[in-house]
Amino acid sequence: MPLPRPLKTLIAVGALSLLAAGHALAEVADVAPELRGTGDLGVVIERATGSVALVDTTARQVLRHVEGFGDLSHASVKFTRDARHAFVFGRDGGLTKLDLLTGEIAGRIIQGGNSIGGAISQDGRFVAVGNYEPGGVKVFDTETLELIIDVPATYEKPDGSMGQAKVVGVVDAPGNVFVFSLFEAGEIWTLDMSQDEPELTPYRNVGSMPYDALITPNGRYYIAGLFGEDGMVLLDLWHPESGVQRILPDYGQGEERLPVYKMPHLEGWAMAGNLAFFPAVGRSEVLVADTTDWSLVGRIPVQGQPIFVMSRPDERQVWVTFAHPDNGRVQVIDTQRLEVIQTLAPGESILHKEFTPRGEHIWISARDSNQVVVYDTRTFEELARLPAESPSGIFFTHRAHQIGR
Amino acid sequence: MPLPRPLKTLIAVGALSLLAAGHALAEVADVAPELRGTGDLGVVIERATGSVALVDTTARQVLRHVEGFGDLSHASVKFTRDARHAFVFGRDGGLTKLDLLTGEIAGRIIQGGNSIGGAISQDGRFVAVGNYEPGGVKVFDTETLELIIDVPATYEKPDGSMGQAKVVGVVDAPGNVFVFSLFEAGEIWTLDMSQDEPELTPYRNVGSMPYDALITPNGRYYIAGLFGEDGMVLLDLWHPESGVQRILPDYGQGEERLPVYKMPHLEGWAMAGNLAFFPAVGRSEVLVADTTDWSLVGRIPVQGQPIFVMSRPDERQVWVTFAHPDNGRVQVIDTQRLEVIQTLAPGESILHKEFTPRGEHIWISARDSNQVVVYDTRTFEELARLPAESPSGIFFTHRAHQIGR
Repeated sequence: MPLPRPLKTLIAVGALSLLAAGHALAEVADVAPELRGTGDLGVVIERATGSVALVDTTARQVLRHVEGFGDLSHASVKFTRDARHAFVFGRDGGLTKLDLLTGEIAGRIIQGGNSIGGAISQDGRFVAVGNYEPGGVKVFDTETLELIIDVPATYEKPDGSMGQAKVVGVVDAPGNVFVFSLFEAGEIWTLDMSQDEPELTPYRNVGSMPYDALITPNGRYYIAGLFGEDGMVLLDLWHPESGVQRILPDYGQGEERLPVYKMPHLEGWAMAGNLAFFPAVGRSEVLVADTTDWSLVGRIPVQGQPIFVMSRPDERQVWVTFAHPDNGRVQVIDTQRLEVIQTLAPGESILHKEFTPRGEHIWISARDSNQVVVYDTRTFEELARLPAESPSGIFFTHRAHQIGR
Repeated sequence: MPLPRPLKTLIAVGALSLLAAGHALAEVADVAPELRGTGDLGVVIERATGSVALVDTTARQVLRHVEGFGDLSHASVKFTRDARHAFVFGRDGGLTKLDLLTGEIAGRIIQGGNSIGGAISQDGRFVAVGNYEPGGVKVFDTETLELIIDVPATYEKPDGSMGQAKVVGVVDAPGNVFVFSLFEAGEIWTLDMSQDEPELTPYRNVGSMPYDALITPNGRYYIAGLFGEDGMVLLDLWHPESGVQRILPDYGQGEERLPVYKMPHLEGWAMAGNLAFFPAVGRSEVLVADTTDWSLVGRIPVQGQPIFVMSRPDERQVWVTFAHPDNGRVQVIDTQRLEVIQTLAPGESILHKEFTPRGEHIWISARDSNQVVVYDTRTFEELARLPAESPSGIFFTHRAHQIGR
């Protein structure tokens, strides 16, 4: 299909917004941007104030706060391939490009009504945004923020009329492909951006209401969770001709329809060797699957309903956060013993966590404590407690170099 | 043990050395260092001139050439955790710290007589160098280049006298540990830098003449090849109490003592799912082992004696370089079909290759063509051919964020 004319809604917001992050850092406000490597930088979402904290994982400090991102509840972040810029996907449909070196907003558009995340293509040229309202995916040039292609999530309803679906689980895959799921439609689509004419491939009737998805670290398997029924669906991107398969048929709320405090996130499925660790729905368990046949091989009791289940980069530990009312604690699972070996209480309303690239530390956001807490993952010693306004998502720049992150 | 007094041999070499890399880049020579992300930078060793080419993997360009590294035959590179500086390990015992943003040499010491590589600790604070002459490992502060600890590779010979062994296969492991092998001693040592008092643990009599080693991407298994006998040795760092085990007992030259043009490198063992792909010694084969029990499960015929066997980050392909006289071609193996699917002829004397972080491209050095050739790994299309002086090793900054790289 021919490329549509770029939208002319690019709003350059060049304001340098600095909040002093403690007196020791106040003096940076008036100096020129520092020449520095960007490999140890990161972004912490401050949802209450629509701001982000720029952080340095070597110094374990907040470098500055930057405002002007709009509604950041449930916001996520992707990094450009040079690790200089962060794209922040806001709940208000805002797509904001942040310069990590200057702290300036290098570009901001309101691209939709309600976006829930996105991805950057393997070659770094394109940023895709998935939208709730109106449904669909828009792809922009990462340099200019020009619209490259608008893909409405149009689907045929059972009564034959056409609808617009919410788009969830947008990820990048090798070959410059984006993959995403259509909630109301029960479909998975791939968008191949490797040619001048993008190619769209829909997989129909995959299951009822896919609500979130993940891609494995090698970019091969795209797995979506279903809200409308038990089980999950898997698309093997090395064998798209095989279509979408069902896996883990008992995964979900089950016949008892347990009270679910919050649907778990799938982003953080932990892979360790042949095992995948993932949150049970509505149960105080972390589930373990064998990735060679995607069968369920274990259930690990934990202290609440798990939300994020993430593996340390060396795969020896899996760290778990929980839904309310058990969200004041974090638990650590040993991937060989398959049991909890540590429980930590970093603060109130633990929302997210991020490992340093080689896994020596973990940063944990305690929203209602207004703090980000840094631990040594070997000794469990608390190393730092940094101030942040209602911190939620934490994202470090090494994600720029990883498939699907 | 108490820390030794830092050596006072730090030589700050601040010379900014620029060779115009084609007319389009000549104008950068007089301008201030550019504020830029460091996530898409890399270093190409130019062995004949003792220089390196600084490259940009987004623009696919040589940014500048920097001289003053001494003897760079067989040189290797590690990056600091902020991805701003590269440590270059020279054959003449030189340890040189290069600022990727300014192109300046930020520090250079001659730390030994003949070094063959090193590693940076998980926390980024320490750089370890393995030495042939005199044998041993020296650990320096990555900020100041001050000597932190000098570990002589002293061992007891069969006749009871003491000797100094060449050190090979220096890697970093989780827990701020360095692991290395002692060639003449037949030993593997670990050096734990996580406490103020470093702790050394030797594993004796592991096998005859370990000549190179690797660590798996999760940092669990350290595997050394043996020059003096067949088979390899494996140390499970999660279970050091189990000691060193023998694996792949037939690996090596075998009873026929085949002519070996060059011992293969172990650095680039390719891991893909449960399979490890690695170069046969003296045979035109890539071998395949099952990493769950380290048994040999396959042999893939290739066009020469393989040297580097490296997997694309998505694990779907393995790219192979070869020893003389077959070193003008590169072959690509499909990891599902377990057969060669492509043969490329980038130039004369292919020495090394490096994938871009998410694997869309590969950069290949053709020493005697004085070129680095960039390919699209999906289409095998040649994308760029860059000038370089006798290029050998190619290293991109995302290695800073990976265990053992």
